[in-house]
Amino acid sequence: MDDQQRARRPGGRSARVRAAVHQAVTGLISERGYGHFTVGEVAARAGVADSSIYRRWGSLENLLTDVVVTRLNAQSPMPDTGSLAGDLRAYAAAVAREITGPDGLAVLRLAVALSNNGEQGLRARDAFLSERTRQLQSIFDRARDRGEHPPDALGVLDHILAPMYIRVLFGAGPLTPDYIDALVDRVL
Amino acid sequence: MDDQQRARRPGGRSARVRAAVHQAVTGLISERGYGHFTVGEVAARAGVADSSIYRRWGSLENLLTDVVVTRLNAQSPMPDTGSLAGDLRAYAAAVAREITGPDGLAVLRLAVALSNNGEQGLRARDAFLSERTRQLQSIFDRARDRGEHPPDALGVLDHILAPMYIRVLFGAGPLTPDYIDALVDRVL
Repeated sequence: MDDQQRARRPGGRSARVRAAVHQAVTGLISERGYGHFTVGEVAARAGVADSSIYRRWGSLENLLTDVVVTRLNAQSPMPDTGSLAGDLRAYAAAVAREITGPDGLAVLRLAVALSNNGEQGLRARDAFLSERTRQLQSIFDRARDRGEHPPDALGVLDHILAPMYIRVLFGAGPLTPDYIDALVDRVL
Repeated sequence: MDDQQRARRPGGRSARVRAAVHQAVTGLISERGYGHFTVGEVAARAGVADSSIYRRWGSLENLLTDVVVTRLNAQSPMPDTGSLAGDLRAYAAAVAREITGPDGLAVLRLAVALSNNGEQGLRARDAFLSERTRQLQSIFDRARDRGEHPPDALGVLDHILAPMYIRVLFGAGPLTPDYIDALVDRVL
């Protein structure tokens, strides 16, 4: 591995395996949908042993939850633009990029499928909601420190994320920057 | 058929067949999900001939679209309470009842599945959106006649329907009357 590769893949072997396995999952989800592939098929596509997946994630459902939580929340670090409006706009724009990008629809549909899958589904949903709340909290905390008045996390779910999710799930209209900014402004 | 049955089933034989076929579809969707049953199975469960379904709907996809459009929009007549706020609250409450009722989640998931199904999906989505817009238009027209200022149909989608749909799709929290009224008040 040369320096360029090293730079492109931070975190070493463990992070590379995780990225390869996530990539294999989103590919299989896009091609076949939830419920139509096995841990063995994920492992084969990612070029790792089945046992690596079981050791790390324990089960296919846990792996799928990890993919959803990562893909629908992924923003590290969270935007820090100096204002609540700026942070929420950047956050919303990043979510929009994620859900309209490759596999974005497949990941959203996976999130819906997982959420309705009994006990495991409840855990997946709670993991997703608590990670998102945790992420937004850093934006809200900074806003309060500046004397601004942040909305609550459910307001962001209902009026920024839900409209974007539904538009993508129903294929209804593009998520333009103007549209996204208007969603944020409305919440503030 | 006695008078009581007649009263419960307005519209005669054609309406009864439609209701039985719709019921068969929502049952199969709940049990197996989209893509896992045939026109023949719908016909058998509804107690009608396959040919009746093909004659009336042309294809399984058209039938599924009809079910989604009917179930996610069904409100006849639309509420007419004398005020825009009252009409939208009654409309939102009726949508909430529908999507949290039996098969509500299954119908929502079917709507998502259909919307992403190529050309046919685009037609299904357009049928759904145009029917909803048509329904809301009657509320908006009456509001304008009274000198009120209605939102546009997309605002209702983004800030009343989308939050409710997402909460049901992700199993996140109940749709209480207070919650629904707050969604409407926010749009107005």
